[in-house]
Amino acid sequence: MTWLPSLMTATPEEGFDLAIKLSRMAVKKTQPDDAARSRMRPDYANNADSLTMVSQVVAANFQTVAAANNYWRN
Amino acid sequence: MTWLPSLMTATPEEGFDLAIKLSRMAVKKTQPDDAARSRMRPDYANNADSLTMVSQVVAANFQTVAAANNYWRN
Amino acid sequence: MTWLPSLMTATPEEGFDLAIKLSRMAVKKTQPDDAARSRMRPDYANNADSLTMVSQVVAANFQTVAAANNYWRN
Amino acid sequence: MTWLPSLMTATPEEGFDLAIKLSRMAVKKTQPDDAARSRMRPDYANNADSLTMVSQVVAANFQTVAAANNYWRN
Amino acid sequence: MTWLPSLMTATPEEGFDLAIKLSRMAVKKTQPDDAARSRMRPDYANNADSLTMVSQVVAANFQTVAAANNYWRN
Amino acid sequence: MTWLPSLMTATPEEGFDLAIKLSRMAVKKTQPDDAARSRMRPDYANNADSLTMVSQVVAANFQTVAAANNYWRN
Repeated sequence: MTWLPSLMTATPEEGFDLAIKLSRMAVKKTQPDDAARSRMRPDYANNADSLTMVSQVVAANFQTVAAANNYWRN
Repeated sequence: MTWLPSLMTATPEEGFDLAIKLSRMAVKKTQPDDAARSRMRPDYANNADSLTMVSQVVAANFQTVAAANNYWRN
Repeated sequence: MTWLPSLMTATPEEGFDLAIKLSRMAVKKTQPDDAARSRMRPDYANNADSLTMVSQVVAANFQTVAAANNYWRN
Repeated sequence: MTWLPSLMTATPEEGFDLAIKLSRMAVKKTQPDDAARSRMRPDYANNADSLTMVSQVVAANFQTVAAANNYWRN
Repeated sequence: MTWLPSLMTATPEEGFDLAIKLSRMAVKKTQPDDAARSRMRPDYANNADSLTMVSQVVAANFQTVAAANNYWRN
Repeated sequence: MTWLPSLMTATPEEGFDLAIKLSRMAVKKTQPDDAARSRMRPDYANNADSLTMVSQVVAANFQTVAAANNYWRN
């Protein structure tokens, strides 16, 4: 079993959700301790700049997923 | 119903608005509490660097949307 | 009337100016209050790192505009 | 022997792991002292913004690896 | 006369210099006062993170210039 | 003589080293004083976020070098 079987998604919205998943997985692989990540959640979820930084990561990953799906053009 | 039916837009300006929507949606999916996000608004709306960071996210998402639309060349 | 009729420009320099416009427009759409933006101007115009961050946003938007114009190769 | 024989991977998940490896290798080549890097680990592993920054680097490298693999489309 | 007649350069090194020029020009267009920019020079020229940020902007602009020149492959 | 005769490299690892060289050269061209750069080395070599920022620059330059080399696919 793999957490990332494919970059292909049926819809743009699913592609955006995959971009979020990729963003979080890089964090998880750097800090695998679930409790540690949970403790940090209020730090970024209540800070405007932290949330903007998260959005920047999602944007980069969405570039990848959207290109992979040929922008769901067809 | 989906908030992101397509990356295609009729005009570049609509594409730019979609890039802003994508940027905000990543924030919303990370911090779904509307009141929490509203409380943070003055933090970034009145800080030059915060606004520049927001503009950076929009630029990344606009790259995706513009490519998807083949830069509205035709 | 639209502020962004097209990503096409006659010259690379006009393309660079459009990249600056895109960068500022994302700020304006996030903070529409002209007076508020004017008050913040000294904050970033006199701070080296703030200016570098602005330049980063322009670079990202110039990537989009340059690609749209096929790098003004012909 | 090379630590980077190829950008090709069999699966998207292996490609993501390679993106993480690339991200860490750039750090290692800048700070080759293993003990120094180990000492810094708590600094970023317990800081939300630091982890987001790490995720941003991984996203950039994953763009490269995914493009190299033609997004594992076939 | 234009400061940016073309993105084409004869060599990769000239392309890199053009990327630096683009990075500085975005700063200059945001802060046109030469004296103000000169005063800020020690702030970033003697700060490691500031210099890394400058390098990030140059990297983004070099992506554009290199693509424009088809990576000087021929 | 040029420090950047080509973006082509024989292997991915050499391409990664070139990406590091590009990242450092942008710093060097902004702060040409060797002694000044040496003095700053401990500032970023012992700071986790600084090293992550360096890795971000390398990732951007590696995107360029990898694309130039068609990802060393053949």
